[in-house]
Amino acid sequence: MSIDTPLNDLLRIQYPILLAAMDVVADAKLTRAVSAAGGFGILGAGYGDADWLGRELALLEDARDLPPLPFGIGFITWSLANQPQLLEQALAAKPAAVWLSFGDPAPFVEQIKKANALVICQVQTEAMAQDAVMKGADIIVAQGSEAGGHGVSRSSMTLVPAVVDAVGHKVPVVMAGGVADGRGLAAALMLGAQGVVLGTRFYACQEAAGHPDAKARIVAASGDDTTRSIVFDVSRNNVWPAPYTGRCLINDHSRKWAGREMELMRHRHEEGERYLAARSNGDFNTAAVIAGEAVGLIRDVPTAKEIIQRIMADANQLLDGASRIGSLRSSATHSADAKSISIGA
Amino acid sequence: MSIDTPLNDLLRIQYPILLAAMDVVADAKLTRAVSAAGGFGILGAGYGDADWLGRELALLEDARDLPPLPFGIGFITWSLANQPQLLEQALAAKPAAVWLSFGDPAPFVEQIKKANALVICQVQTEAMAQDAVMKGADIIVAQGSEAGGHGVSRSSMTLVPAVVDAVGHKVPVVMAGGVADGRGLAAALMLGAQGVVLGTRFYACQEAAGHPDAKARIVAASGDDTTRSIVFDVSRNNVWPAPYTGRCLINDHSRKWAGREMELMRHRHEEGERYLAARSNGDFNTAAVIAGEAVGLIRDVPTAKEIIQRIMADANQLLDGASRIGSLRSSATHSADAKSISIGA
Repeated sequence: MSIDTPLNDLLRIQYPILLAAMDVVADAKLTRAVSAAGGFGILGAGYGDADWLGRELALLEDARDLPPLPFGIGFITWSLANQPQLLEQALAAKPAAVWLSFGDPAPFVEQIKKANALVICQVQTEAMAQDAVMKGADIIVAQGSEAGGHGVSRSSMTLVPAVVDAVGHKVPVVMAGGVADGRGLAAALMLGAQGVVLGTRFYACQEAAGHPDAKARIVAASGDDTTRSIVFDVSRNNVWPAPYTGRCLINDHSRKWAGREMELMRHRHEEGERYLAARSNGDFNTAAVIAGEAVGLIRDVPTAKEIIQRIMADANQLLDGASRIGSLRSSATHSADAKSISIGA
Repeated sequence: MSIDTPLNDLLRIQYPILLAAMDVVADAKLTRAVSAAGGFGILGAGYGDADWLGRELALLEDARDLPPLPFGIGFITWSLANQPQLLEQALAAKPAAVWLSFGDPAPFVEQIKKANALVICQVQTEAMAQDAVMKGADIIVAQGSEAGGHGVSRSSMTLVPAVVDAVGHKVPVVMAGGVADGRGLAAALMLGAQGVVLGTRFYACQEAAGHPDAKARIVAASGDDTTRSIVFDVSRNNVWPAPYTGRCLINDHSRKWAGREMELMRHRHEEGERYLAARSNGDFNTAAVIAGEAVGLIRDVPTAKEIIQRIMADANQLLDGASRIGSLRSSATHSADAKSISIGA
């Protein structure tokens, strides 16, 4: 007999761990590694580049296992709206799900469902969650502002239970933002989520399509070393509409321009050239390493499989021990001289 | 035999639930109600008003139970530094702990310890946690930006486990910010915290010294309805140094001035008068209701005892069920036709 969350059943996965659809970083190699390890890989099609998408989908197809591994394809919704033909290209690869984040999912839901794929909508507020479910989302990812890359201001700790209260009776809710280890997965389950999305943790993994120095900076950073701003977007001439900002590691460039975004706009031609050159050269004193607050919990660059196995082992140990905390704490009235077992430090 | 966290032992409490030292709102009545219900009440001495403090301490003394209920007294550290004589007044009331938040605790640690009281330091970053422990903190409260009132930008979900990793081998770590129900307590324990601090949840309780309309607005608000800014501080001519900002419910006044703080500074005389009048009149279209993101999880105004009992019952139910999720999920390889128990929607 097995216990599975509806999420596991829906996505036909063993472990409730999803790969965040990180633009470019979540390529075919990483997507496949996460799915092969029992999680749910999601290709990061991001803004949508037909050539990149075609190449990565072909790689996924070449590596296709029997039975096929489930995987998803993720888009930035407002960008997909500018080139909707990419959705047909994506659906032809028979993904188990399409991930839509940052924008109105309505124009795409019917087409995705007709292709027998699930609609995963990532949302950042309670209102967006209700809207997405009304429009047909099958799975809601509640993304806290801890997350790396674009997002809004609500934090996972309150967003997740509030979204569960609002739409959890209709669809599974998954937590994104701030999770990098088994503690985060266990906490997410306590908050009512049925799984977690990992971005930064999978960025700092062997199979991710990221620069080695970017991965090394994630490993070295403390959780105090990230900032949410529009500096990196202004610098690459890629300004998003409010309410979206992006979280990155603090570096020389973000320190220089933090709070001076209007001035940066005026210098965006020379700063933009400098920024793009830095991106090409892997100079992360200027180019941003897009990463979330969970960097403080990341200390190595293992394989995707090691990450998933470690998280599951740690979460299971916490969950197994939890009932002992709970039942005994509830029945025991504190007595200073009772025999006492410390569960803390 | 009882299982207790070191936190429960240190504070001599039954339940690991602390009252946030909310300036003025956490008065003697609320402090005593929380302690009498098995939690740890902390008087919100805030900026420090000797008359208010004397009156509330006398009320606590009058109501003193036998054996005495443990309680704490909380200060805004940088404000206490301007009138350090208040600490002597506080220690004379024999609190079990003094809570220091927002500033350097070093000048006060020795005096507090000499009075046989514990030093609770609330911190907002990993660096502050390490600094506070080095200076003698006995308990660290890691406050995420979800919290109502003043704070910084790190979120509980990543701040708490990172602070546990940094100082948890030396002192108990408690989670503040984003907790209003049993799910939050269970999640905090999974993250390695030994307890939680509740602010907004205890604001919307019968015994809290808050305006009934403020409590009603907390009940009505969704978690999307708060904002972290300096508008309310500029309006009351109470500007804090960076990195501190404050979270409040969004209202007409905050909507009007959001992003226009420099302009508000220029109008601060007339706007300040209008703001103070609104505070006196309980006009919360202008005056801020200081509250955290957890408002979205708050739907009533019960007693402090009901809040604590409900949280403990819900957390215990979650913790009791957790081992069943954990052990079975870890051993079960997903099989589509296996008999399946849904733990989700």
